Amino acid sequence: MPRLHWEDFSPGQVTECGSRLITRAEIVAFAAEYDPQPAHLDEAAARATLFGGLVASGWHTCCVLMRMLSDDFLGDANFMGAPGVEEVKWLAPIRPGERINARATVLETRPSRSRPDIGFVKFRFELINAAEEPVMTLVVSPMFGRRAANAGRDRAPNAASRS
Amino acid sequence: MPRLHWEDFSPGQVTECGSRLITRAEIVAFAAEYDPQPAHLDEAAARATLFGGLVASGWHTCCVLMRMLSDDFLGDANFMGAPGVEEVKWLAPIRPGERINARATVLETRPSRSRPDIGFVKFRFELINAAEEPVMTLVVSPMFGRRAANAGRDRAPNAASRS
Repeated sequence: MPRLHWEDFSPGQVTECGSRLITRAEIVAFAAEYDPQPAHLDEAAARATLFGGLVASGWHTCCVLMRMLSDDFLGDANFMGAPGVEEVKWLAPIRPGERINARATVLETRPSRSRPDIGFVKFRFELINAAEEPVMTLVVSPMFGRRAANAGRDRAPNAASRS
Repeated sequence: MPRLHWEDFSPGQVTECGSRLITRAEIVAFAAEYDPQPAHLDEAAARATLFGGLVASGWHTCCVLMRMLSDDFLGDANFMGAPGVEEVKWLAPIRPGERINARATVLETRPSRSRPDIGFVKFRFELINAAEEPVMTLVVSPMFGRRAANAGRDRAPNAASRS
């Protein structure tokens, strides 16, 4: 039985979601498969770009965050995916050998109108580098299962009008 | 010399950006690496989810779109990446063996204020399945190089106040 349900999240909660080393090999492997731009594929070619050297694809960064959340945050949760992503900001490049940390902040929770057994939790996720600079922020509202006893009974005080 | 520059895009332009078959093997391989949820990893486990069977990760879908754009759209363009993503909507699942098509619509163009040699093009990208249903829409404003002769001279008529 998963431990975390929708009712376990509330606005203002901050959770540290682990740490990951980003290697040159994985930057290049991801880029070769999904984002074959010079800045992500080849050190020499990357020097001629805005970044002045090899950097991780922004999409790779999103995927690494998803994996970190799967490993360190969602494993214990009754997580049911998300209908989309509200915002991604790529604020600073990630270079080979950098270690990044992930942090989750709950912005809002709201029950589903159409499905009393689920609710949405709006998060801002941040990836932070060793210099404590944010390299990416991502706002997304995944769905979580509700505890059966509560479903359809209590509504979050900050429930929005969307469903 | 790349062919497409910022000046070559204008609001309302629609471009078909190729077609891709999504295989079970790649759905599972992506999920194992980046999004190890039951709905994306294992047919039997996926049957118990909202989706009733194996479906591609939404992040995988974003990455496939990026690869399609790299292969079929950006190859001839003076493309310089994007500062983030404004919106992603996962509208319908992609199941193994589905063929998807990509379409780009230009929503707006605006020059950079701080860098006269670049400009932003706001796109809505759509992925469409064989039944002509949209499976994902994605709004993003990548940067493109401007033609040297024009840089700093002409401003797009729909230039926004942001820079």
